[in-house]
Formats: sequence, C-alpha cells, structure tokens
Amino acid sequence: MASQIDWVAVDWGTSNLRAWALDSAGAVVASRSSPDGMSRLSREQYPGILASLLADVAVSADVLICGMAGARQGWIEAPYIDAPADLTTLERGAVAPEMPDDRLRPRILPGVCQRDIGAEDVMRGEETQLLGLAALLPGFEGLVVMPGTHSKWAHLSGTRLERFSSAMTGELFDLLKTHSVLRHSLGGDLEGEDREVGFEAGLDLGLDRPQRLTATLFKVRAGALLSDRSPAWCAGFLSGLLIGAEIGGQRDWVPGVGQVPLVGSVSLCALYQQAFARLGIDTRIFDATDATLAGLQAARRG
Amino acid sequence: MASQIDWVAVDWGTSNLRAWALDSAGAVVASRSSPDGMSRLSREQYPGILASLLADVAVSADVLICGMAGARQGWIEAPYIDAPADLTTLERGAVAPEMPDDRLRPRILPGVCQRDIGAEDVMRGEETQLLGLAALLPGFEGLVVMPGTHSKWAHLSGTRLERFSSAMTGELFDLLKTHSVLRHSLGGDLEGEDREVGFEAGLDLGLDRPQRLTATLFKVRAGALLSDRSPAWCAGFLSGLLIGAEIGGQRDWVPGVGQVPLVGSVSLCALYQQAFARLGIDTRIFDATDATLAGLQAARRG
Repeated sequence: MASQIDWVAVDWGTSNLRAWALDSAGAVVASRSSPDGMSRLSREQYPGILASLLADVAVSADVLICGMAGARQGWIEAPYIDAPADLTTLERGAVAPEMPDDRLRPRILPGVCQRDIGAEDVMRGEETQLLGLAALLPGFEGLVVMPGTHSKWAHLSGTRLERFSSAMTGELFDLLKTHSVLRHSLGGDLEGEDREVGFEAGLDLGLDRPQRLTATLFKVRAGALLSDRSPAWCAGFLSGLLIGAEIGGQRDWVPGVGQVPLVGSVSLCALYQQAFARLGIDTRIFDATDATLAGLQAARRG
Repeated sequence: MASQIDWVAVDWGTSNLRAWALDSAGAVVASRSSPDGMSRLSREQYPGILASLLADVAVSADVLICGMAGARQGWIEAPYIDAPADLTTLERGAVAPEMPDDRLRPRILPGVCQRDIGAEDVMRGEETQLLGLAALLPGFEGLVVMPGTHSKWAHLSGTRLERFSSAMTGELFDLLKTHSVLRHSLGGDLEGEDREVGFEAGLDLGLDRPQRLTATLFKVRAGALLSDRSPAWCAGFLSGLLIGAEIGGQRDWVPGVGQVPLVGSVSLCALYQQAFARLGIDTRIFDATDATLAGLQAARRG
C-alpha cells in the first residue's frame, strides 16, 4: 500500500489527531485517528506519536499539518499570518519541525490573526477549513459561520479571508453546565423529549435580547426552581440562549440575501441552522472534516 | 452579658455564617462569625453549629435568620413569598426549625420569587437587605443594584419590592478566570498597576456592546496573545467587560435622574460605581452587612 502514497494530510487539534494518506490523484487511500491532541502532549512526544500513527501507512512521505500542533504550546510555533489574508499563501508560512530521520517530512501551517485594536482575534485550524470551503464553493463571497468551542464568524471573498471574530459560545455552555450553579438544574437526562422545547424558548430569548445574557442565563436556574423544568429542558434552554445570543448580537454581520455556509460538526451546525432559520436566513452545512481535508489539499497545491 | 441579650440576628449564607446579639435598644452587644455556610453543612449539623456559635453569647434567645439556611438544600425550606411583595411581611413567612431544647428559638425568613413567565427569578438573603435599605433610606423609590455572585437589580417602592432580575456576573467572572481558556491569560499577578487600564477598556466595550458578550470575552485571550497584555490587564478587562455588559444590557432599568443605591461588598460596589459614573448616573454604596442587620431588625419589628 505504501507505494501508492503521495503525501499525508493531518489535522492536529486540541483533543484529536487525524491523518489521511492521499495518492497522486488526491484520493484518500488510508486514514488514521487518535485522541493524542495537543492538550495531552509535551513537545518531545510529537515526533514519536506521528511516526507510530503512520507506521503502517507511509514509510516515507511529505506530511502537511494544520491546527493546534502549530500553537506556541504545541509542537513548534507556526507564527500567525495577518488578516486580511490570501489563504492560498498558507503553505508559505508553514514551519518544519525536526524529526529523527527524513522519512516523514512534516510541515505545519500557520494560523491567522487580526491585529486591529479592539478587534484582536486569532484562529488556528479554521483558516484551513475556510480555504477548503473556498475550494468546495468556488467564487463564494460572504459570511461563513463555524460553530464550535470558540465559534468563528468570517467574511470570505473567494480564497481571501477579509475579517473574522470568535465567540466563546461552546466553551460557555460546557463551563456553565459543569461548574456553575446551573449544574444543579442540569443533573439527569439531558436528552429528554422537552430539550427541543427548551432550546426553542432559549433561542427566542437569546436572539431577541442578546444584550441581557448575564441576566437571562439565570433563568435556567429560576425555571428549574419555580416551574419544575426538567434537566433536558434546561440543557436545551441554555444551549438555545447562548447560540441565540451569539447570532442575535452579531446580526450586523448577517447578509440580507444569499446562503450562509455553516462549517463544523453536523449536529451542532443543525442547531445554528435552526437559529438562522428563525431570522429567515438560509444556511448550508459543511462537515468540518470535509472542509479540513479539502483545505489541506488546497494548501498543498498553493 | 447574657442577661442583656434581647434577641440574635443571623445571616446564614452559602459560604459564611454571621450572628449579632442585640439588646432591647437594638444595639449590637456581641457578634460572631464562622465559615460554616450552607454549602459545607448537612441538614443535621445546623442545630449544633448554631448552639456552639452562640454558646458564650446567649443562653436563651429568639434567633432570626435570613439567607440560604432557608433554601431547599439548607436547614429547612422557608418557601418563597411572591413578588411584588411587601417586605414588612417577611417575618410572617418565617419557618421554625427544630432544636434539641427551647433555649434557642430560631426562625428562618423566606426568600422572594417572581413567577411571571419569562421573568422567573429568585432571591434569598437580598430581600432582607432590601428591607434594611428601606429602613436606611426611608421613602426611597427606584432602582437598587446589588453586585455579587448573582447580582440583583430590584425596583423598590418604600418597603415594597416591585420586581427584580438576577445577573450571573460574579459567577461568570470566577468561572472564566478559573476554568476557561482565558485562565491562560490570567495566570500571574492580577493586581498589577495596569488592572485599572484593562478594567476601563473592558467597561467601555461592555457598556457599548453588551449584545456581543460571547464574542468580546475572547478578546481577553486575543489581547494576551497578540498585544502581550499582562495578567492584571486581562483580569481588569474581563471584570470590566462583564460588569459593563450587565449594566449596558439593562439600561432600560436605569432612571434618568436620582441616585442609585448599590448594596454589596464595598470594593465590588466601587467598580459598579465607576461603571454607572460612565453613564452619568450617581450612586451611593451601602455595605451589605449593614443592610442585612438593618433588614433583620426591621423584619423583627414587622
């Protein structure tokens, strides 16, 4: 099998590592994944982890990596390039970490930063997905929303990333569910049938009053205490409230016409799709993995 | 000394327990405190904790208690009374927990709830402070802001609590500082000299764009990564952002004229005072302990 391999594409994120071996026609001939994300690795572990992941896939190959492996606390820092940025130039900013021999030849793509005072922001991994989206939707211009732990809103013009903004929506949900007083209202079956009812109620409130978020969050607790809301309802409400506030507070980014691409996990994107539908906005979901692989391929082409 | 004691006022909160022994003229003749708050106690521990706290203060006395001791997860539940509420009636809703003998005769004041759909809310402890404020500022009508873990905004008319709303501002600050990705930007000296500069920058952004909170929170991280902001600057910025968003998102509560009483810890209230001053709103700080004691005295008078 190894003889077919042209190169290996790798998405090395905070909590996961995925690799795809590609032949010269760009087809995936093998793929591997592991939970060895950046958050559990020390710098010196990366070469061995990569070699063992690819041991039965590629004896010798170029390896192009995107994601948190290039962060300061990752394998080796791949300094950010500045937005606005032509994403076809990503590969020029790649850095080559050391390996014990030259059979695997890894290069790590940079992230993108935005230095404008008051709009400072960073992404690492999503720039590759955006380049992939530009390949999947040639000529697209407009808003792209990337739901996640730190959601990204980006304005894309073809392969050019004009500007972007992060929102801590996913992380806030996890924090509040796990560590806050709201956890008392979220203990139990979170997937019950009234999760959807709670989600819609939270979504309406979040979209309508994003400026009240510090106050409306407490409605999760008050609803559980006073109205015997179930854990599933509360989980749905909290999720809807946060997603609604993210979208409601950034409506000035949302175009009046046209379709908004959503890039992320399909199940999470479906919740954002529901939220945008409330505003009459049409969306289209792209699985983050597809976008990442398309982006790594486009980056290699340059 | 015990012969002078007329009754004992107790504030039994989540993380602290405080008691004041009062003579028949209403003067404090002794006070005690301990860290035996509700969060560390099981139900059966309360009688012994109270007896030992007061062992050298009062052999026999009425004891009037406010706060979380009356929560469902406290000593014995003192059911909420409904807002709008005449706070002079609080004592009528008090419940008497059992004691091994009748020397100490505790009664626990109720909290207040608001059941209106979409505005559900609860308080427990602050209602007593509000009754105390009504005694300290006779005839006051208007907005009262009570900064804290769960800040309360209340509209008071004399001793009548018209409506109120909680904001999770203090808890969000602690959660984000301790558990979120922002903790990486907050490791170090948080009291450095540029904390004030960060606070003012966060305050301006929070007041101006409360609807963007899920996004602006990430500026703490981006500011640290891109602009080498110090931990103190980041801590100030995060604090300002959250307080600014709480106030900026609820400006429709803020009166055009007159002074807004702030009830809480004096240092936290000073930050809110600074925020309201940005809006041209005059404020006056009342220490929460003073308001609690005044409230327990007013509740006993009925």
